[in-house]
Amino acid sequence: METKQKYVIGLDFGTDSCRALVVDAHTGAEKATGVCFYPRWKKGLYCDPQTNRYRQHPLDYIEAMTEAVHTAVKQMSAGEVSAICGLCFDTTGSTPALTDANGNPLALTPEFAEDPDAMFVLWKDHTAVNEAEQINSLIKERGLDYLMYEGGTYSSEWVWSKVLHIINTNLNIKNAAYSWVEHCDWMTGLVTGNTVPEKMYRSRCAAGHKAMWHARWGLPSAEFLAELNPQLAAFLPHLYKETHTSGVNAGQLTEEWAGRLGIPAGIAVSVGAIDAHMGAVGASIAPGVLTRIIGTSTCDIMVADAAEIGDRCIQGICGQVDGSVLPGYIGFEAGQSAFGDIYAWFKRVLAWPLQFLPDTADKQKLLDDMLVKLTDAALQSEPTEISPVALDWMNGRRTPDADQNVKGVIAGLTLGTTAPDIYRALVEATAYGSRRIADHMRAQGLRIDSVNAIGGISKKAPFVMQTLADVMNMPIRVIRSEQACALGAAMFAAVAAGVYANVSDAIRHMGSDVEAEYIPDPKRVEVYDGLYKKYLKLAGLSDEIS
Amino acid sequence: METKQKYVIGLDFGTDSCRALVVDAHTGAEKATGVCFYPRWKKGLYCDPQTNRYRQHPLDYIEAMTEAVHTAVKQMSAGEVSAICGLCFDTTGSTPALTDANGNPLALTPEFAEDPDAMFVLWKDHTAVNEAEQINSLIKERGLDYLMYEGGTYSSEWVWSKVLHIINTNLNIKNAAYSWVEHCDWMTGLVTGNTVPEKMYRSRCAAGHKAMWHARWGLPSAEFLAELNPQLAAFLPHLYKETHTSGVNAGQLTEEWAGRLGIPAGIAVSVGAIDAHMGAVGASIAPGVLTRIIGTSTCDIMVADAAEIGDRCIQGICGQVDGSVLPGYIGFEAGQSAFGDIYAWFKRVLAWPLQFLPDTADKQKLLDDMLVKLTDAALQSEPTEISPVALDWMNGRRTPDADQNVKGVIAGLTLGTTAPDIYRALVEATAYGSRRIADHMRAQGLRIDSVNAIGGISKKAPFVMQTLADVMNMPIRVIRSEQACALGAAMFAAVAAGVYANVSDAIRHMGSDVEAEYIPDPKRVEVYDGLYKKYLKLAGLSDEIS
Repeated sequence: METKQKYVIGLDFGTDSCRALVVDAHTGAEKATGVCFYPRWKKGLYCDPQTNRYRQHPLDYIEAMTEAVHTAVKQMSAGEVSAICGLCFDTTGSTPALTDANGNPLALTPEFAEDPDAMFVLWKDHTAVNEAEQINSLIKERGLDYLMYEGGTYSSEWVWSKVLHIINTNLNIKNAAYSWVEHCDWMTGLVTGNTVPEKMYRSRCAAGHKAMWHARWGLPSAEFLAELNPQLAAFLPHLYKETHTSGVNAGQLTEEWAGRLGIPAGIAVSVGAIDAHMGAVGASIAPGVLTRIIGTSTCDIMVADAAEIGDRCIQGICGQVDGSVLPGYIGFEAGQSAFGDIYAWFKRVLAWPLQFLPDTADKQKLLDDMLVKLTDAALQSEPTEISPVALDWMNGRRTPDADQNVKGVIAGLTLGTTAPDIYRALVEATAYGSRRIADHMRAQGLRIDSVNAIGGISKKAPFVMQTLADVMNMPIRVIRSEQACALGAAMFAAVAAGVYANVSDAIRHMGSDVEAEYIPDPKRVEVYDGLYKKYLKLAGLSDEIS
Repeated sequence: METKQKYVIGLDFGTDSCRALVVDAHTGAEKATGVCFYPRWKKGLYCDPQTNRYRQHPLDYIEAMTEAVHTAVKQMSAGEVSAICGLCFDTTGSTPALTDANGNPLALTPEFAEDPDAMFVLWKDHTAVNEAEQINSLIKERGLDYLMYEGGTYSSEWVWSKVLHIINTNLNIKNAAYSWVEHCDWMTGLVTGNTVPEKMYRSRCAAGHKAMWHARWGLPSAEFLAELNPQLAAFLPHLYKETHTSGVNAGQLTEEWAGRLGIPAGIAVSVGAIDAHMGAVGASIAPGVLTRIIGTSTCDIMVADAAEIGDRCIQGICGQVDGSVLPGYIGFEAGQSAFGDIYAWFKRVLAWPLQFLPDTADKQKLLDDMLVKLTDAALQSEPTEISPVALDWMNGRRTPDADQNVKGVIAGLTLGTTAPDIYRALVEATAYGSRRIADHMRAQGLRIDSVNAIGGISKKAPFVMQTLADVMNMPIRVIRSEQACALGAAMFAAVAAGVYANVSDAIRHMGSDVEAEYIPDPKRVEVYDGLYKKYLKLAGLSDEIS
């Protein structure tokens, strides 16, 4: 390892903003940071929550990135800026756009500048529900393998559903489109001057998890795609057969973009990936460590040695892709459709009567502190074998066996059950859901010894985290970095720049330390073992009553 | 029927107070009324909510009755008072007391005046849980028939459990006790000067529903009772073999009690009964009409022609007793352990955050109006096949198949579920529980065409009542009388006094009119048919998760 000062940039595109994180490539120390919200998105343009249509203009990305990088480099001296040697993107996903022959989103052409269908279709856009069903039916009907490694069900949030929906419903776009691109790949292509669809670097992570790409068959066949819509098959020659893991050098920063961003031209740009996977790397993922991004929902990432897994397929998760997280390791993605959202929901239920009271400072404070007060009250009691038990499916179930139609349950209620009792049951339910994911993976031979956690809940809700440790009966380490996704991207930038031979080395040197560790309490572990059995029964029954 | 003006008195002993209702024996019109709360009870004496010990001093009954009757007769002229020709008691039950050889509760002796175990053990006293288990085990072990007509499970709320508990735990009382008496029977014995245990009139209703009395075997055998406690068997010769239906003349009002109450001596006193059964009569019960007392919980009373039922046993209800409601008809008792209590519970849950706000008039008004506001909001939406579904077992289940250990459930929750949605689901759950009782009885051959309702909820909660009609798919008539129990007692007083040959005639002439009728809405009936199936699944599963 060289000892000369070197910096790398992780560029993290979240749902609302772009963050530029400049990191010391030797130590991982955060040197500078800049954030910029997407200006059009912030105004609500091109979106329609009624129909779950969420679109983002490519100019939002360009402008926010430029501003965020400017903000960061302003915090550095010219000498320090010149020590920046690499760059890597992580973005939400699947967030694809239809492109022209140059690989640029159609919304960048004057003709389609204001057409939402010419923009990026954000991960949470649900306009393609019917198309997802169509894809699933056809795969089932033909007995195809495409979903083998994607958990068995194709989602309306994923690229083929979205692209199919747009060409099914917008003839102008259909006629104009030449190919499609994922957000993370387009960013990389853009700043390296290589957006040409047939030539650009495509992320293994996005391709494998969202586009049914697999090394055995590449993308789905022309025959299959044509049956959905001939135009879909027509995209195939303009797409890709090969994909690349992050850390691979996808090219050099162009003079133009170096100028626009105010950083050195020619620096290495790594192949990008989807944010959660980069976040897991930023949280020092390793085999045996379940890495969880815990916020409104959870994204749960695991890795296992590719040789150890071989051809085995882990059933009922969201996907398994060779190299999607760490090159040389199979990456697994799972998750809970709702986590912190469930507490927020209960807060909304409890806040319902408050609408009838005048708006006072006391009332606002109560609304602000509601979850804190519920937590304080919940801490006054210990769980017992007759405590209420809830099922955390208020937003459907992601893992195991994704199903958007199942619903939440609260059982074991008595006339003595209090609001804090219910809150505790909901916290426990999210923990049972977490344990079930771990158990589900373990039952299929994946080793899980401990949990690394990032995300809002992991930092601000110690009661939740302790309950999670007690229920999962595993120590949980909370990673200090507030920007694990950007940090993960920066680690890959360091690999692409040649600072490290591989990302495991980068993690070793650049990894964030642990700000808190939650150790299971043996007494509660035992009680929760019993309550978890009730949770499983409730889960088993829920299909019948949803 | 004579046409000379005649009055009868119904004396209704509730949980908190005694009500005297003077009724025109020809028309049922309310002439005068008086209420008096039990003075010692009101102070909380002799009770311990922590251990569910609820005792009432016999002097409370005497004083409250005297005051209530005085209040009523003060509203009448001397001539009208002299036209009073009959009297009948209804009381809570099983509410027994241990007595001396004169049949008076031991608390009336100086030695035991302050001993809670020498007083009446109120229906809701749960100190005898272990004794109830002991009784159930022994009956099961010996393969005895005693519970055949009492729903299959003996309750801790019933007389043998309570008496056994007291003699098991209070040696002084055990040594002093000569017999026991139910509250309704003691009142009758007291005012007719016939409390002698071996001679007094015992209510068929109390004996059959609470003391395992049946015409085939009388009370349980000495052998059986001795196995529980020899002293229990020693009571047997001081108890009864025969029982009497209400309407039977149990004697004449003594000079002493006529003087104390200020009403004519020598008037007929009818055999009494338990309040809910009298309430059903006051609500004009008839075969085919399910009569429901709907308040915090429900008591559901049915009658069927004795010849039609024959020896058949309706399983899983609270009891079936020949003549317990109407002489010549089999009376059936069932119920829900919680009804309005469930709405009050949800109000408490929602009110939890309000404790953190200053006590203002706005806050008090919100607390007072909470259920009204929830109702208004619930009325803004219609039930659909994907509405949440709840299970109304927050206080255990009374019918079918009584089980205190089962618990409530709320299922079908999403992140969009609101407080009014949950309230609606709880209202619907209490209605599903009602329908299940009706279905359960119908499945065993009882005819149910319509519902008569009395009790607080029936009068003040039209949304609940309409939902009940929609879910049960039967018209529900709400009886106008606010005092159906006392009215029922007055009807029996009129029979005992010879005004009518039987209580069906009394009902025809004295029955209250209907203040509201709820007719099922065909569209909602259909939706609820579907949701009820989910309720039944939830019910079927609940044993596993409670």
